[in-house]
Amino acid sequence: MIPQRLQADDGYELWLKYTRIADPTVAATYRRQLQGWRVVSEGATAEVVRTELRRALPGLFGKAIPEAAGGVNHQLVIGTSQSPLLASLHNKVAGLAADGFVITHTRIQGKESIAIVSATETGMLYGVFHFLRLLQTGQPLAEVSSAPKTKVRILNHWDNLDRTVERGYAGFSLWDWHKLPDYLDPRYTDYARANASIGINGAVLTNVNANALVLTPMYLEKVRALADVFRPYGIKVYLTARFSAPIELGNLPTADPLNKEVRTWWQDKIREIYTYIPDFGGFTVKANSEGQPGPQNYGRTHADGANMLAEALQPYHGIVMWRAFVYDHQVPEDRTRQAYNEFKPLDGKFLPNVMVQVKNGPLDFQPREPFHPLFGAMPSTALLPEFQLTQEYLGFATHLFYQAPLFKECLDADTYARGKGSPVSNVIDGTLDQHTLTGMAGVANIGNDRNWCGHPLAQANWYAFGRLAWDHQLSPSTVADEWIRMTLHQDAAVVQTIRAMLLATRETTVRYMTPLGLHHIMGWNHHYGPAPWIKDKERADWTSVYYHRADAQGIGFDRSSRGSNALGQYHPPVQALYNDLQQCPESYLLWFHHVPWNHTMRSGRTLWNELCYTYQQGVDSVASMQTQWKTLHGKVDGALHTQVTSLLAIQYQEATWWRDACLLYFQQFSKQPLPTGVPKPARTLEDYQRLEFPYAPGIRPKW
Amino acid sequence: MIPQRLQADDGYELWLKYTRIADPTVAATYRRQLQGWRVVSEGATAEVVRTELRRALPGLFGKAIPEAAGGVNHQLVIGTSQSPLLASLHNKVAGLAADGFVITHTRIQGKESIAIVSATETGMLYGVFHFLRLLQTGQPLAEVSSAPKTKVRILNHWDNLDRTVERGYAGFSLWDWHKLPDYLDPRYTDYARANASIGINGAVLTNVNANALVLTPMYLEKVRALADVFRPYGIKVYLTARFSAPIELGNLPTADPLNKEVRTWWQDKIREIYTYIPDFGGFTVKANSEGQPGPQNYGRTHADGANMLAEALQPYHGIVMWRAFVYDHQVPEDRTRQAYNEFKPLDGKFLPNVMVQVKNGPLDFQPREPFHPLFGAMPSTALLPEFQLTQEYLGFATHLFYQAPLFKECLDADTYARGKGSPVSNVIDGTLDQHTLTGMAGVANIGNDRNWCGHPLAQANWYAFGRLAWDHQLSPSTVADEWIRMTLHQDAAVVQTIRAMLLATRETTVRYMTPLGLHHIMGWNHHYGPAPWIKDKERADWTSVYYHRADAQGIGFDRSSRGSNALGQYHPPVQALYNDLQQCPESYLLWFHHVPWNHTMRSGRTLWNELCYTYQQGVDSVASMQTQWKTLHGKVDGALHTQVTSLLAIQYQEATWWRDACLLYFQQFSKQPLPTGVPKPARTLEDYQRLEFPYAPGIRPKW
Repeated sequence: MIPQRLQADDGYELWLKYTRIADPTVAATYRRQLQGWRVVSEGATAEVVRTELRRALPGLFGKAIPEAAGGVNHQLVIGTSQSPLLASLHNKVAGLAADGFVITHTRIQGKESIAIVSATETGMLYGVFHFLRLLQTGQPLAEVSSAPKTKVRILNHWDNLDRTVERGYAGFSLWDWHKLPDYLDPRYTDYARANASIGINGAVLTNVNANALVLTPMYLEKVRALADVFRPYGIKVYLTARFSAPIELGNLPTADPLNKEVRTWWQDKIREIYTYIPDFGGFTVKANSEGQPGPQNYGRTHADGANMLAEALQPYHGIVMWRAFVYDHQVPEDRTRQAYNEFKPLDGKFLPNVMVQVKNGPLDFQPREPFHPLFGAMPSTALLPEFQLTQEYLGFATHLFYQAPLFKECLDADTYARGKGSPVSNVIDGTLDQHTLTGMAGVANIGNDRNWCGHPLAQANWYAFGRLAWDHQLSPSTVADEWIRMTLHQDAAVVQTIRAMLLATRETTVRYMTPLGLHHIMGWNHHYGPAPWIKDKERADWTSVYYHRADAQGIGFDRSSRGSNALGQYHPPVQALYNDLQQCPESYLLWFHHVPWNHTMRSGRTLWNELCYTYQQGVDSVASMQTQWKTLHGKVDGALHTQVTSLLAIQYQEATWWRDACLLYFQQFSKQPLPTGVPKPARTLEDYQRLEFPYAPGIRPKW
Repeated sequence: MIPQRLQADDGYELWLKYTRIADPTVAATYRRQLQGWRVVSEGATAEVVRTELRRALPGLFGKAIPEAAGGVNHQLVIGTSQSPLLASLHNKVAGLAADGFVITHTRIQGKESIAIVSATETGMLYGVFHFLRLLQTGQPLAEVSSAPKTKVRILNHWDNLDRTVERGYAGFSLWDWHKLPDYLDPRYTDYARANASIGINGAVLTNVNANALVLTPMYLEKVRALADVFRPYGIKVYLTARFSAPIELGNLPTADPLNKEVRTWWQDKIREIYTYIPDFGGFTVKANSEGQPGPQNYGRTHADGANMLAEALQPYHGIVMWRAFVYDHQVPEDRTRQAYNEFKPLDGKFLPNVMVQVKNGPLDFQPREPFHPLFGAMPSTALLPEFQLTQEYLGFATHLFYQAPLFKECLDADTYARGKGSPVSNVIDGTLDQHTLTGMAGVANIGNDRNWCGHPLAQANWYAFGRLAWDHQLSPSTVADEWIRMTLHQDAAVVQTIRAMLLATRETTVRYMTPLGLHHIMGWNHHYGPAPWIKDKERADWTSVYYHRADAQGIGFDRSSRGSNALGQYHPPVQALYNDLQQCPESYLLWFHHVPWNHTMRSGRTLWNELCYTYQQGVDSVASMQTQWKTLHGKVDGALHTQVTSLLAIQYQEATWWRDACLLYFQQFSKQPLPTGVPKPARTLEDYQRLEFPYAPGIRPKW
């Protein structure tokens, strides 16, 4: 009794819209191959598969495809290789990595069949979603054999127990803790469906700035309820462990990881957690960083801390994801060096069920950073790369910023750890150093906004993260193509326009925010908008001037061998690439060098003029996006078109703000005029400096 | 290019679903009368009408009804009486209260027509929504003449600028301040549609615990954007004025309402506001209450404060809604007396554009309170009743509590202000004391949850509030019937079951929470769950023991002439009704009397046994609701059915918790056993007292 309704696209259904296949020839071809379907396995995941097909197929074809339990010619047969009917396909899936699957044309009980088969139930589900993706994107139903390149494909939710989300720009937390465990918001299921459809198999439910309360029985009951919803979708729940929980919850005088009582407390606590959630995934830990407690409070190392938890989790096959994003109380000469300094010496000291979670770059999710020097520096340690899908430094949820090119730039970067051809991707997929515990973590950009991610097109980042965690060889273009076809439109010209827009966004944003290797020049605390003038705060390395170092001579942070030598943390060929001002790729110029204002760039322009032009290019590129989007009026959903139009207008306005505020500020040092073609800013530097945003989203409320 | 999609009912569309009319005979009858339609007025509201009809009619009839600009026999013609085509109907609408409308059968240019006409554009919109309601609820298209009984029909949003909502249980604020003014969430329009459809014409956007920042240009731009969205729907925006804003924003040394500079500051500020929003509605003010600043800080009266703002608003036709919910720093002997004590002497002292906003009862939105004694006590003052739709004391958004019976109990209560037949409704609709400035305010239960109100059935309270503000003579049953038919199902038997459930909820909740006149025995601060044991807090009148006064002799707050004589604030016939313990209706017994445990009740039981049985009845009634709801399985939308089933299970659990915790607590005083039929509590009193809910929704986050 579900009524059909006419309504605007509110974005809730993500890439699982199952819109009717527009091309009748394509649809007819599929229909011939799909006279009926059956799921020959049983269990909760098989039921999930049935439900999904009952939803998807009528949507795609405009009418139901019969469920043919008894078999029919040209059928779709789905199951695990344990199913007797599919046993003959066992060999095809036996060699695949866990949860890999095969889609194959075969005869089953004499009937022409397409079989989707995996050794595991979750793999079977992944195969079905892959198959549906083929239908959604109009691809031929050819043979497929696919297996994930990493094992722990996980979202980190920086969600607090009061439902605020640190650095969240898409509303508030999905987890309605008050109503849990007894009320299960249908959204939990749709979240699980979306994740499973792109291969995500884990979710850290809570903020890395952790609250020990989530480890108490009252909350564990709630966590169990979520775990129960997610389980049939192959998704494990993880929590953040507050290192001082033994003090806060256990009334112990210490949280020293070598203290016997502390170790017992964690063992008991972990045993208790597993009584609630038998497949609990483990912990993410932010320790001794930004005020969080940790082992160093007791003179112990990160390895001591991580191993204590890992040892307690090991009997249950749980893991620890220990974050390398740390920095001293003492402000370092170059903060980008710190994670390496602290963690490199610990290589080989972590238990096998510990992953060290390393941000993609050495600073903090800037629009562009070089890859983190720990990649390639810890061969004996499982490294889990951390990307930030939520756009803390990328324009919040108002700027269109398709992140796959950013992910790929990091994944493709060559560490030279074992000579040329040692990309980050092979560090983290385990092939370079023979690790079996591998993964990819993304800080979720998901909230309770109707469209999940705030910006209607920001879903593409969630999608791309999952797809690349499964297969880092996919190109950003392919992934964008899939997402657009499934989510927005099937028409090739429309797809091409939107894809071109998405692919350009990353460079565009770098240009209008932090061109030529600039970094960390955003607003104080909330990180909204430009603020290169930030200085004199409680920590120098929380200011902007610490990073851009603009002065009368020039601009940029000298991290070469003549400066902080952060470059020395990389393997020699990488050093060689960046150490020489003349050779250094200009996109990283001011990251690695302090460069005179009149330095001649490859364009022949001075640095100052190049900086100005690059900001201007960024602004112009947003204007081009606006023009491109305008051509889609009447083609994509009207409500969506209006929303994106408004958001692009904001992006243009803010790109202009970045350009003007930054150039006015830096001009104080360069003492040079704006070159022709770069308009005079509409406001004064003081105007920009006076702007305040006390209720910018994503920060702790001020009361 | 809007695809038709199959999806579960997520509640987003509220009562504007426009589901296909199920009964073919009814549909055919309508179709004969509706061969075409036209809107003969122009302007933004006329456009809104067209858009709504283009959405509604195809939904209701399964196909479009032609727009017949040139006219057609059996047509629907919509316009204002200024339209030449409808000028002959001018007399029909001329005498109606503002925004009243007529739906009438007539001939227009020789064509059989149904005309929807009003003197105003907003009235035309109301008429269209009324007409659509007739279609949605299967009523005959008879002649209608309808006009609102009150003028300011307004929602109060207790929404903060960081999007938290004080006492909000439906997610977070609808207002995405960060993205305003440039990004207009489609939800703003849908909010306006929903309000207009039930006659709500005002929205106070911000929390009564006010933040002066909303009065700064940065926020006024955002407020303007919302006002621009709402305007075509006849909705004015209002803000809360922080009384100390002249100090906080204007850097004045005082906010004394008689100070010249302060007065000038407000005049300038208000002039500024009207440059942004020419039809700005005015201010709601909470002053000298719960820590908010106010005129009493400067030795001035509430009238001094309200009049200062009113004078400045008067040239622009703005109003002040000055809340009577005040209490001293000094804890009074009986807090329920305080509003009357402070405001009654001010009657006649307020300027004509001030309304004094009075909560329905003298305490604070309890499940049951007598009507507020200010109703009927301030004949020279416009009184605006305040109801609380958000369920602060009514089980948050997890308990089903249909509030129309509560509203009506207050509205129907006879104040005897001008003798018998002087109900609150006639105080507030202006007929008793000849006021033209009238209204009804409701503290919104709306948040950014997909279904708006948290509980899928709590929308009925938003709906009922609007309908009763328009016409307080409507019965809760009629209103429920309309809402169910429009929102859930058209089948008479289904409607009847749900209506019976809704109508019973109020008494049920009173029974399991605060039977026999008990009040204010809920959890500390968050107000979640029972806590009759609360005592020894910074203010006695924030505790439970202050209100229930249980002791060895009995229980209840003596407000009779022998006690605090709060009853003395009512007119003599009301006093007579409640003053005598033997005569007092038992539903108010413990509100007005301290009653011995062995007092014989009308049932013949002792008070203690009656108390126990009444709690038990409450629990049993929830169980009955569960049984009733179960019968609807397969009839209402499946997802909705599952959700409500879960919520009823929570309600049952919490009803049991209330019963057990309260009876265990009161048993300490009565020292009597639980009577037969009331089960032994599962846990001890200490267990219940130990429960903590640090992140219960609706309170300021703890960090």
